[in-house]
Amino acid sequence: MSVIKWNARAGAYYDSVVLMQLQRGLLELSGVLDAGVVMATQANRDLLAANNLLPENISANPDDLLIVVKADDDASAESAIGQVDELLTRRKSSSAQQEFRPRSLSAAVKQLPEANWVLISVPGRYAAGVARESLELGKHVFLYSDNVSLDDEISLKKSAREKGLLVMGPDCGTAIINGIGLGFANHVRRGLIGVVGASGTGTQAVTAQIHNLGGGISHAIGTGGRDLKSDVGAITAHQALDVLARDPDTKVIALISKPPSPDVATQLISAAQSTGKPVVVYFIGYPAPARKIGNLWFAVSLSEAAEKAVEQLSHKGTMSVNSDQLSVSSRKGYLRGLFSGGTLAFETMVGLQASLSPIYSNAPITNYQLLKDPLKSEAHSIVDLGDEFFMVGRLHPMIDNDLRIRRMKQEAADAEVGMILFDVVLGEGSHLDPAGELAPVIKEIREKRIGELGELEFVAIVIGTDEDPQNLQSQVSTLEEAGAKVFRTATEAVEYVSLRFGSKKENEFTPVNLEQLNQPLAGINVGLESFYESLIAQGAQAVHVEWKPPAGGNERLASLLAKMKSKKEN
Amino acid sequence: MSVIKWNARAGAYYDSVVLMQLQRGLLELSGVLDAGVVMATQANRDLLAANNLLPENISANPDDLLIVVKADDDASAESAIGQVDELLTRRKSSSAQQEFRPRSLSAAVKQLPEANWVLISVPGRYAAGVARESLELGKHVFLYSDNVSLDDEISLKKSAREKGLLVMGPDCGTAIINGIGLGFANHVRRGLIGVVGASGTGTQAVTAQIHNLGGGISHAIGTGGRDLKSDVGAITAHQALDVLARDPDTKVIALISKPPSPDVATQLISAAQSTGKPVVVYFIGYPAPARKIGNLWFAVSLSEAAEKAVEQLSHKGTMSVNSDQLSVSSRKGYLRGLFSGGTLAFETMVGLQASLSPIYSNAPITNYQLLKDPLKSEAHSIVDLGDEFFMVGRLHPMIDNDLRIRRMKQEAADAEVGMILFDVVLGEGSHLDPAGELAPVIKEIREKRIGELGELEFVAIVIGTDEDPQNLQSQVSTLEEAGAKVFRTATEAVEYVSLRFGSKKENEFTPVNLEQLNQPLAGINVGLESFYESLIAQGAQAVHVEWKPPAGGNERLASLLAKMKSKKEN
Repeated sequence: MSVIKWNARAGAYYDSVVLMQLQRGLLELSGVLDAGVVMATQANRDLLAANNLLPENISANPDDLLIVVKADDDASAESAIGQVDELLTRRKSSSAQQEFRPRSLSAAVKQLPEANWVLISVPGRYAAGVARESLELGKHVFLYSDNVSLDDEISLKKSAREKGLLVMGPDCGTAIINGIGLGFANHVRRGLIGVVGASGTGTQAVTAQIHNLGGGISHAIGTGGRDLKSDVGAITAHQALDVLARDPDTKVIALISKPPSPDVATQLISAAQSTGKPVVVYFIGYPAPARKIGNLWFAVSLSEAAEKAVEQLSHKGTMSVNSDQLSVSSRKGYLRGLFSGGTLAFETMVGLQASLSPIYSNAPITNYQLLKDPLKSEAHSIVDLGDEFFMVGRLHPMIDNDLRIRRMKQEAADAEVGMILFDVVLGEGSHLDPAGELAPVIKEIREKRIGELGELEFVAIVIGTDEDPQNLQSQVSTLEEAGAKVFRTATEAVEYVSLRFGSKKENEFTPVNLEQLNQPLAGINVGLESFYESLIAQGAQAVHVEWKPPAGGNERLASLLAKMKSKKEN
Repeated sequence: MSVIKWNARAGAYYDSVVLMQLQRGLLELSGVLDAGVVMATQANRDLLAANNLLPENISANPDDLLIVVKADDDASAESAIGQVDELLTRRKSSSAQQEFRPRSLSAAVKQLPEANWVLISVPGRYAAGVARESLELGKHVFLYSDNVSLDDEISLKKSAREKGLLVMGPDCGTAIINGIGLGFANHVRRGLIGVVGASGTGTQAVTAQIHNLGGGISHAIGTGGRDLKSDVGAITAHQALDVLARDPDTKVIALISKPPSPDVATQLISAAQSTGKPVVVYFIGYPAPARKIGNLWFAVSLSEAAEKAVEQLSHKGTMSVNSDQLSVSSRKGYLRGLFSGGTLAFETMVGLQASLSPIYSNAPITNYQLLKDPLKSEAHSIVDLGDEFFMVGRLHPMIDNDLRIRRMKQEAADAEVGMILFDVVLGEGSHLDPAGELAPVIKEIREKRIGELGELEFVAIVIGTDEDPQNLQSQVSTLEEAGAKVFRTATEAVEYVSLRFGSKKENEFTPVNLEQLNQPLAGINVGLESFYESLIAQGAQAVHVEWKPPAGGNERLASLLAKMKSKKEN
């Protein structure tokens, strides 16, 4: 028979290392079978239950510390619970034996004025405050803490962007700045590949693999997982792409994250194009829009992202594009895709959804892309004219061009339309001379538009072989003579359209100071002591703040103190 | 000033070619500015409106034929409307001048007994009936028609599967059988690549590109877009993979479709693995689970699918796997992934969701994969133990192994669990000897399981470099000595796990007769005459049925006739 005893402590703050060490200390005591030392949240109680460690009838708030001991008998359990204070003190005294430590951020800055980074890993509810103070002191922030509110993240990042500072996080596990790993980071050689990673292990897997393949890292900049959501707008990712673009020691960039919000993706891809450097993009769990769009290369796994980044170093230029062409001849207005082939329309949506936003279709990939009325295009639109909706009693648009010709004229009458993309599918069963019917219409529209509403560009995807009944070559040249740009696969057309609509990204923020970023990293650590030890082990200058929450974690007292402080200031 | 006149005809059936020709005939008449000849559905009325061709105050049912003429003046418009009957007759008589044509499917079979295919492109509401009759006559069906009900599709395909016949469609645009294109198909050389394609232009783009790259097609089998939904269960795709696997003239298979339902995807991937041939898979708009899993290669575009299929011909064996190993040592039970890295967990989900179903996670790709309780695994599960949920007041599992060790023991106590997959992320900030803490637990669990609940396999992903503080090599060997299989990237682990859980697919249907499929194609065409002409042009034997709907399309009369017929039979 075993017995379970427990003890709860209200309103006190303990470092999670201290809690782990307390649990281990309890487990070493004689007669103790198992022990749990946790904050009394529902999740943690459920975890205790799963380990048969949840006492009956406990009364504790989520903020309380809950200490549970399972032992052979009452005496052992009670003795263990009785030693909690001693175990906590033992830990404290071992820590206190070390060198003098500042108790505040400002004191730490006085001790290490050259510090350019603050690492923050205190509990979420205190983290934003520490980060705000760090920014005010002009320091970049590595924000490991999770459970920081979205509002705090947004206000911190906006403030950082104004000051030309980076806020990596919240919930940022990993970064490597100037050869020094922050948080969880592998030892990798310095090199020519810059990494922008939303979270932690994605960046670790990619940087470690780059090292294992013989490459190296200039900087690996973390953003935190929420950075690429609409609300935050990828503030940190944009700063990171910008500074890596300017860094002469970064030759290739890898951009790794879970799928961004569509509008954020569009802007990020545009920013990545504007770097003018090869960028390997891996949006995990998102269908790759193509293998390659200009200087962007889309990977399908973390290890492939690493491989492709390393390959780009040895084959410089394979992904480079004429960046002048990109910025000078950007296409204004909307794209309207008028397809006869449903699968071609769908594949084109997959390819363009990352770079054109918003984009709508009657063949949407996700529901919010659904075109409300297939007869009326909105913004960028891809319309499958062979959809059932159009097909009642009507021949397929691969046989009868009437529907498409009428729709082309309709789109051309809209001054906001800048490009019409369409497919011509040759072969048995199809119209015997689609180009012959479409070309005069294209010519007529183009001439009319130049005179009236401004230039309208036509881009065609011609699917066919040299053995098809239509004569592939003459179909292509008929369309080209009418002024259409012709591609032979959807992939090539997608790349062209993406590049044409890509706009040179103009940054509207204070750039991060590159020279300062490339100076030796010196850091102030607030939170997990192991992160401080890790900086020292890597040869970086660092100071650890002996941080305690305001009023020792007692919320009522903290609020009272804050009121007093504000009164005093008034 | 222009005037619009219109005329509606109730309850009559017209071939859509006839309607197109009537419209063109009207447009050639003097004084006519524009004309529309459509079935009076709401979509078609909206289309007329978009072209300024919708008359006011029309009264017509969706089944009615609506003829609209816009002309210079009343007289021209009325004269044009007056010539409709004559224009319709002109078309009919030209058609009637041709050779004798059977008026029923059974008559056509008597005329061309060697016919092995029936091509059906009549309006959707009649198509299932014709298809059913074709199957009863022992013919494969190419079902171009759309607007066929899901119930009809399922019953037709189940019946076909019993008879060893194929139903390609409904809404199947393209197939190439034995060198002959059905529906819309490009002229491509015969060759060693078999294609299974859900719809039309996807298959056209891939087959044309294979030809353009110098390759050729054995058969391209269409399935219709709904085949890969759960309700239908990919009946045709499974038959197609099976027959192409048995075909000695097919060396490589390409499988192209929009994303299948998850359960269907799992079964299809298992079937593709069982072919033992290289299979290039492209699920359009679905994140590729990997570049390669055994004999499967995942493409990210139609043109890449074609390229990879052609490449496989020249590099035979690059994708081959030891199929004995696959079938003999398949892993029974469930996978439980216990991750410290959130991004690694997510990437593993992306990789495994296609081959393991159902799979759940607290880091799901789609909502239905969400694990209801992160503390309790279900079926196959991937748990991110570093998720915020677990992290209140607790050290990250990359620092503290306690949470993971407890969860490993919990999973191991479940007899249904066959494999535990976990990551070990080395580097700064992480535990200094994770393998040293995990290995004894793994060893203990494995020994206990062999004695009690049966073997339990451990697979580890170790992320790290040779410069990490933990000594990568000794971490790996410690885990290996404890009996874990160790990989250095998530990609490799995903491939291994997918192959371990893959099962040799046993078909439970009457196989399609390969010898018959490889005989010269002879077809009976019911519907669009151009498909018949196309068969003849390609040198195939063919008969066109002069098809009319029951009772000339008059639904009331048709139902009366059906009743009389059933009375007679009784």
